[in-house]
Amino acid sequence: MMKVAIIGLGLIGGSLGLEFSKNHCVYGLDNNQKHEELALQLGLISATIPFEKLHEMDAVVIAVPVDKIPNVTKEVLDSITDKTLVFDVGSIKENVCNSIKNHVNRKQFLATHPIAGTEFSGPNAAVKNLFTNKVNIICEKQLTDTKQFEKFIHIMGSIPMRYVFMASAKQHDKHIAYVSHLSHISSFMLGKTVLEIEKEEETIFNMAGSGFESTVRLAKSSPNTWTPIFLQNKKHIINSLDEYINNLQDFKKMLQKSEQENIYNSLKETNRIKEILP
Amino acid sequence: MMKVAIIGLGLIGGSLGLEFSKNHCVYGLDNNQKHEELALQLGLISATIPFEKLHEMDAVVIAVPVDKIPNVTKEVLDSITDKTLVFDVGSIKENVCNSIKNHVNRKQFLATHPIAGTEFSGPNAAVKNLFTNKVNIICEKQLTDTKQFEKFIHIMGSIPMRYVFMASAKQHDKHIAYVSHLSHISSFMLGKTVLEIEKEEETIFNMAGSGFESTVRLAKSSPNTWTPIFLQNKKHIINSLDEYINNLQDFKKMLQKSEQENIYNSLKETNRIKEILP
Repeated sequence: MMKVAIIGLGLIGGSLGLEFSKNHCVYGLDNNQKHEELALQLGLISATIPFEKLHEMDAVVIAVPVDKIPNVTKEVLDSITDKTLVFDVGSIKENVCNSIKNHVNRKQFLATHPIAGTEFSGPNAAVKNLFTNKVNIICEKQLTDTKQFEKFIHIMGSIPMRYVFMASAKQHDKHIAYVSHLSHISSFMLGKTVLEIEKEEETIFNMAGSGFESTVRLAKSSPNTWTPIFLQNKKHIINSLDEYINNLQDFKKMLQKSEQENIYNSLKETNRIKEILP
Repeated sequence: MMKVAIIGLGLIGGSLGLEFSKNHCVYGLDNNQKHEELALQLGLISATIPFEKLHEMDAVVIAVPVDKIPNVTKEVLDSITDKTLVFDVGSIKENVCNSIKNHVNRKQFLATHPIAGTEFSGPNAAVKNLFTNKVNIICEKQLTDTKQFEKFIHIMGSIPMRYVFMASAKQHDKHIAYVSHLSHISSFMLGKTVLEIEKEEETIFNMAGSGFESTVRLAKSSPNTWTPIFLQNKKHIINSLDEYINNLQDFKKMLQKSEQENIYNSLKETNRIKEILP
């Protein structure tokens, strides 16, 4: 049984607390006192812990919004000894990896990205089995002490996840911009476009079931979570947006010219996604 | 027990056959002979029927691809008497309504759009309960004979659906462009953009679960079904695409300038979709 502290008790931090509590002593802290109280009530953590005591932990998990992760991680690394593992669970990896790359305790740190979530946020959003059978991307494992990495695997051990290793945090951020962040923006802007035209909300509701519901699902996501993600990864996201907008404009031109065969081929080619995501 | 013929034995026609077979004698025809044989084997219909015998039916359902619906409907209306109801189930309504608006048998016809589907196509895609609790949009009901409309309700009676009436087929096509067709294009182009950048398909698979799967689901849809839909409704779709692209470009500009508050507000405002589609 290890002592694990979680900083940031929202959807991800809270859900990790639920899992870790099965086998470990879980402590928590959050700069929102109500979140701490709620996390205690909901059994996400067994006690709160002040920042000054984090050095007593076997592991510290950084689960704050992505724009706060670099500073919080640096402060935690400043305050621990070589007996503590620190890992973050943010969806951007280059900002935190760069900010602590020369830190004396760099080898105590592991950059992780468990790809899981719902459109809800805060301690109330914490759910069991959020991470079950999901992918966890580990970046720059080569810079983490082997013993600390083994401890990480031990702590995460009770959660069945598929681990993927990426040597470069920058590569992670580029790929995730396309596969995750662009999906969220396409969904948010689809929701916005439909809301603008459909002043009578009844029409949207009446026509639901038409494919709109699944494509717009991500537009229910929390602006508190996603505004910093988009800003932190803006370079890669802007590239992906440019390519997405180009593809939409090309499609529009084909439609304008009624290019039946080209439209068919474009759709058919994209059907390849069936083989990758069956 | 009524005699109902279905022209076009794909996903929609086949699934209707399954439902109607519970209470009626269901006949089918398809210009693809293999589809007819398959529909018989699968029990979607109890017999095939030649076009020349359609006038013997109580009702004829037009379930061919949307670009074929106007002509097929016209030919069927040419060949029946006032004892037969004809209704189509296509996802575009203006083309068929306009093409038969002056037909001597116009009052025998009902324009319907049961909003249901999957990404699969052909007789093998036919499934039970495809229409259960879905919306069925009826256009221009005012132009259909009351007795024929009552027959329609009788035939559809065993399927629990929510009926929505729109006096104007043009209004239907405009709304459906935003709520359904734009969703499909945004999904297809998202799939295309990600496939182009992610040459290594493993990366897509590894990063699945990141929201990409739900937003790209519609990109698995059949090009045979969707190419004609996009072309038939191109005017309204191009308008919706223009607004969607504008919103994406505005979002990109906010990102470029790191306008945190504007991005937050845009996402927050779009969250309203939660209240409409809970």
